[in-house]
Amino acid sequence: MAVTIYDVAREANVSMATVSRVVNGNQNVKPATRKKVLDCIERLGYRPNAVARGLASKKTTTVGVIVPDISISFYSELARGVADIATMYEYNIILSNSDERTVREVELIEDHLGKQVDGMIFMSDSISDEVRKEMATANIPIVLAGTLDVEKQLPSVNIDYEEAAYMAVKKLIDSGHKRIVFASGPFTRDINRASKKVGYIRALEEAGLPVEEELIIELDNSYDTAYQNWHRIAELPGKPNAIVATNDRIAVGILNGLRDNGLSVPEDYEIICFEHSNMARVVRPQLTSIVVPLYDLGAVAMRLLTKLMDGEEVSEEQVILPFRLEERDSMKK
Amino acid sequence: MAVTIYDVAREANVSMATVSRVVNGNQNVKPATRKKVLDCIERLGYRPNAVARGLASKKTTTVGVIVPDISISFYSELARGVADIATMYEYNIILSNSDERTVREVELIEDHLGKQVDGMIFMSDSISDEVRKEMATANIPIVLAGTLDVEKQLPSVNIDYEEAAYMAVKKLIDSGHKRIVFASGPFTRDINRASKKVGYIRALEEAGLPVEEELIIELDNSYDTAYQNWHRIAELPGKPNAIVATNDRIAVGILNGLRDNGLSVPEDYEIICFEHSNMARVVRPQLTSIVVPLYDLGAVAMRLLTKLMDGEEVSEEQVILPFRLEERDSMKK
Repeated sequence: MAVTIYDVAREANVSMATVSRVVNGNQNVKPATRKKVLDCIERLGYRPNAVARGLASKKTTTVGVIVPDISISFYSELARGVADIATMYEYNIILSNSDERTVREVELIEDHLGKQVDGMIFMSDSISDEVRKEMATANIPIVLAGTLDVEKQLPSVNIDYEEAAYMAVKKLIDSGHKRIVFASGPFTRDINRASKKVGYIRALEEAGLPVEEELIIELDNSYDTAYQNWHRIAELPGKPNAIVATNDRIAVGILNGLRDNGLSVPEDYEIICFEHSNMARVVRPQLTSIVVPLYDLGAVAMRLLTKLMDGEEVSEEQVILPFRLEERDSMKK
Repeated sequence: MAVTIYDVAREANVSMATVSRVVNGNQNVKPATRKKVLDCIERLGYRPNAVARGLASKKTTTVGVIVPDISISFYSELARGVADIATMYEYNIILSNSDERTVREVELIEDHLGKQVDGMIFMSDSISDEVRKEMATANIPIVLAGTLDVEKQLPSVNIDYEEAAYMAVKKLIDSGHKRIVFASGPFTRDINRASKKVGYIRALEEAGLPVEEELIIELDNSYDTAYQNWHRIAELPGKPNAIVATNDRIAVGILNGLRDNGLSVPEDYEIICFEHSNMARVVRPQLTSIVVPLYDLGAVAMRLLTKLMDGEEVSEEQVILPFRLEERDSMKK
């Protein structure tokens, strides 16, 4: 059985991202880590190119990658994971931006099929009926990366978003909060309505706390909207001072909106962030956060796609990767 | 003569990025702005798809895009500009990450040529001799986006980085500083050695100030390295307290390194940032910055490439876009 990037990562006790960076000669790895990974690669006899060359013959060796917006840190980090594994298996990627508009998503799938791609990686906050129908007739493998399929039909790589939201809310409840603001992306999107919000409600109910509709604040997914809407939180009756945000852009937008208007985090408001992309890494105070393995979501999705394209047996088509809650400085100690 | 996106942007007094967002249905545009742009589109009779359909027939309608690392905000914002104009002219893009390694860059160019791309957008901090040689034999148009060609041979879209560095340094000199730290990416890279550093030295010499080699701090281009190297600045003899950084990652890394170690910006150190991508937008204090039109660098480069691919006459193959210095809160008022 061939040695995989997973084996190397496990053996070296590092992430797949790190192994990939070492294999691809990226300088952004500590020397000691690089040495450890290279030692494991040699010891295990890992040969990424040999693996790739051994694959069944391909048609165009191109895969389509549809993202909402590559200029958003969340998607660009997933895309980097996709691209590195694609390179390792000698695929090129055609990248397109959908802005999460269903019409555009359908057009892009048709467009990529017209380009004879061998497979597709799809990212969005929801799978609409039109997109699902388009995918059903595509005749090539399609894998969802960081994208929830509520019907659990399509191959996908995700974390358990509901459990992550539950854990974030529970963390705030455990530290004494009884009223927790849920600052969410649009509830028209499955990942918010059918998953993260469900986790929010479950944590409240489990603790015997009421679900107050006025504490559920629906925003779009942009930093700017969240930044401008800080006052909706500040003006809530009874001044709840704990916030769970459903993504980085919302968390950082609210954080900066509050701080630029004279309020403090964590003194006045405690915030838990979701995702923790590069954008969230650089703000201060550092955000206590659900850390989603962004690079790995992309990398594992692309690896799953190579298996499906090559007709390999796949034991589990709905892959769930682990996440963690990291405590930093946006909650009181 | 066909109405272009430039015409609409000028008429509506907005950026090309905004026009493109409106045309592509992106929600992230203020309603008043959207209305103004749509009014101009109607008044001028701008028809993006009609333009695209009228183009000469193409071979694969695919262009190659080679970036150092799509997960870096600077490149993902350029790539979004490239992608939007590519979509407008009905091209797909094949995206690859080079990590700025020459060997990889050469491989990728060959790889993309093998895929029969009609043209290529190339981004890097330098054009090595090997890459230049590879490009010379490519037989398809190649445009550099945000990438300096010191020999001024290749079609390119840039700002005047030397002038921008000069302006940043002059700004600090004008506010009373005589010793200014230049925190730069590697001097093996043309954009740093042959352009930004030249502007730094010119501003000092023009003001009759000495060029102190010890104030020129060479880093790699990563946030993490800059973050860890804050002390090299803090330990400089005589404690110079003004800093020009050659990119966002360096500026934000130093800012956070200083602040996490008890120093204040702008009270202890004044910083001017270069680029101002989304990553730099979210930090506090907000950074006084050379603002590079990232989206437009990508968009104009792709538009230039469409002209070259279609054999249209191009009056200027080395395009220089305007930049501006925006005063925010990382300098004392």
